[in-house]
Amino acid sequence: VEAEDTNALRAAVDRLHVADLADLIEQLSHEQRRILIAALGDDLDPELLSELHGPVLTEVMELIGPRGTAEALSQLDTDDAVYVLNEADDEQQREVMAELSVEDRLMLQSGLSYPEESAGRLMQRDVVAVADFWTVGRVLQYLRREADLPDRFYEIVVIDGDRRPVGTVPLDRILRTNADLPIGMIMEPAEHLVPVDMDQEEVAFLFQQYRLVSAAVVDRDGRLAGAVTADDIADVIEAEVEEDAMLLGGVAETDIQETVWTTTRTRFAWLFVNLGTAILASAVIGMFDAAIEKIVALAILMPIVASMGGNAATQTLTVAVRTLATKELTTANARRVVLKEALVGAINGVVFAAIVGGIGFLWFGDWELGLVFAMSMIINMVAGALAGVMIPLVLDRFGIDPAIASGVFVTTVTDVVGFFAFLGLAALLLL
Amino acid sequence: VEAEDTNALRAAVDRLHVADLADLIEQLSHEQRRILIAALGDDLDPELLSELHGPVLTEVMELIGPRGTAEALSQLDTDDAVYVLNEADDEQQREVMAELSVEDRLMLQSGLSYPEESAGRLMQRDVVAVADFWTVGRVLQYLRREADLPDRFYEIVVIDGDRRPVGTVPLDRILRTNADLPIGMIMEPAEHLVPVDMDQEEVAFLFQQYRLVSAAVVDRDGRLAGAVTADDIADVIEAEVEEDAMLLGGVAETDIQETVWTTTRTRFAWLFVNLGTAILASAVIGMFDAAIEKIVALAILMPIVASMGGNAATQTLTVAVRTLATKELTTANARRVVLKEALVGAINGVVFAAIVGGIGFLWFGDWELGLVFAMSMIINMVAGALAGVMIPLVLDRFGIDPAIASGVFVTTVTDVVGFFAFLGLAALLLL
Repeated sequence: VEAEDTNALRAAVDRLHVADLADLIEQLSHEQRRILIAALGDDLDPELLSELHGPVLTEVMELIGPRGTAEALSQLDTDDAVYVLNEADDEQQREVMAELSVEDRLMLQSGLSYPEESAGRLMQRDVVAVADFWTVGRVLQYLRREADLPDRFYEIVVIDGDRRPVGTVPLDRILRTNADLPIGMIMEPAEHLVPVDMDQEEVAFLFQQYRLVSAAVVDRDGRLAGAVTADDIADVIEAEVEEDAMLLGGVAETDIQETVWTTTRTRFAWLFVNLGTAILASAVIGMFDAAIEKIVALAILMPIVASMGGNAATQTLTVAVRTLATKELTTANARRVVLKEALVGAINGVVFAAIVGGIGFLWFGDWELGLVFAMSMIINMVAGALAGVMIPLVLDRFGIDPAIASGVFVTTVTDVVGFFAFLGLAALLLL
Repeated sequence: VEAEDTNALRAAVDRLHVADLADLIEQLSHEQRRILIAALGDDLDPELLSELHGPVLTEVMELIGPRGTAEALSQLDTDDAVYVLNEADDEQQREVMAELSVEDRLMLQSGLSYPEESAGRLMQRDVVAVADFWTVGRVLQYLRREADLPDRFYEIVVIDGDRRPVGTVPLDRILRTNADLPIGMIMEPAEHLVPVDMDQEEVAFLFQQYRLVSAAVVDRDGRLAGAVTADDIADVIEAEVEEDAMLLGGVAETDIQETVWTTTRTRFAWLFVNLGTAILASAVIGMFDAAIEKIVALAILMPIVASMGGNAATQTLTVAVRTLATKELTTANARRVVLKEALVGAINGVVFAAIVGGIGFLWFGDWELGLVFAMSMIINMVAGALAGVMIPLVLDRFGIDPAIASGVFVTTVTDVVGFFAFLGLAALLLL
């Protein structure tokens, strides 16, 4: 790339799968990207755009210009074209739209009209649909003659006179069936129809639960609007699980491609909330400044109580948030799970109380201090376990995503309870 | 269920999809499970076993006995049967094996011989394979006459005389092609062959990267051994992302179905490691006990420095672990990402230094204390950002899964650096 050797570059790129080329481009610097895109020129595979993400995608669109982008979009499947256009900034979107044919523009505008992360955004518009009275032979003939079919499909949708799906037929069943049977005889009833405005997380759940490879999407009147396939769902599943993991870690998304400035701003909010809770915990310590002045060992040991409670809580929280997302934790078994977590917290609390009680005694030679240390450890680990499972349950009940807000509440509980229990017991028993 | 009304139960269960029934069973208590399984009796759908997990699965196998389990296994696809058998405990496995036919037993034994989480475990044995000189018409005839085909398939594998895959043909292409063309003419070259011992995470990566719906699996001699399909991959993707999220939260897996005792034991290890690092941090505090005795405000403010550094580090760590897993973070861009994270940490560090410096001054009326507070905040947030990205990078370089061990190291760094910087600066400047 450095040498700007156009021909060698083209040859190297030709050997790459478009998805690998996209990964390569995301790892280059801005300058290298400019050179590479210029070298590719008109040879650029339109699919490349649908494999890029976020800031790199808008940068590449900038490099190939509105006309080049419009050209590429017109060759993509509708779901991919809508994805690319959605990532463009407002000005790019306007410029590209102006370069599109009227037909493509209307199609993309209707695609963009579905809410983000809905089935309407995931679906491919072109679907192979046939009437239920057609014979298998007629379907085969239609497939062989019709040129305007989707690139790849795995089942055929059977529709009634109003374009409402009544069933689906996997392709292997068509291949295994006698040509003179009507297709309505071999179809499976359309059980798992996806409404256009269903959230993509729900769609992914359907695919996983019923092991689907393809599902018909219907509009608000129940008419066939498109189809979602398993290859799109793989990305959704990954994105949804990743989203929860990122939120638990206090970040909005994997922002590795974002600028320093954007990253700093998005992370600031979470750190600011954390500062508030840390000050709250410190205010609790401030209540006991007299005790600390007399026994400096309290200041040395108190972070251990808070830290162990916080870790026990994080363990419980991680499991609770995940099992709420997969619907393993529900109102039906909530009581049982809360009881179990409290018990786990209590048992580990007692074990660690014995350990830290001994440490407290050996370190400072004071068995009363060891006792206070041990007692506060049990209290905080049970409190942590309870907070770790109950806070996400309550947030979920109120319709708030537990992944986004649980962490703050839970560590606040264990810091406050930890410091209060340890210093309070010390003030009561040791002074 | 409570009323043990067998007929009503059966009728209710009949209306449920087997995957939903499995979810229901996982939410019941032990006693309710026993009643439900007894009511189902011989009507039990074999697929039910493959939809259950962990302890609930072994419990249900116990309830239906070795003969019933063997019966069910013989009706399942090989990948599902291997999954079920693998979850059984050793004694159950032996008993069930004894009840199986020789043929089934050999098949399952060879399935179990592949390493866990490998492609060999995921694959379905039955694959539709044809010779490259067959015409499309002959393939169609074969599909229509052959009874022993997999339940569902999406492409046909083309093999040479040694059963080595040379290409694949998606079913829709067969349906669209003239019957007298040889299949070798319309096949796609076999680019994405999966070796039996490839790790399932790698297999999932192939499926996502190249948007596959099905891939042929080959044995160590390059001969066709089976096929993996997208519906199996959805579960793998979810499991792998979930695994990383769980490890970051300090738990081995979503243990909601495990007993109190198992859960307590598995979580103990992580808490024990955390105790060690917390004691290390406390030892640092202990070095400055004289300073704390004189200025008790130090004890009150020091947890804020450690907590903010810890949070900044967790944010960076979460992104680093995730992008290492998705191969977005590589040796090629590691330097750029480390620099960026350090810069983000420094900017947020300066902003929060200004905030906490003000707080320190207002709270305790001591501008020198505020200055020490602010300086240590910058130091710890930069240290946290650097540790958050460099520790996972180093672990990854040494072939250790960064998700499992990063958390401990990173919080140790921010606790130790936070306490040392704050108390050390205070001892130097304030005393």
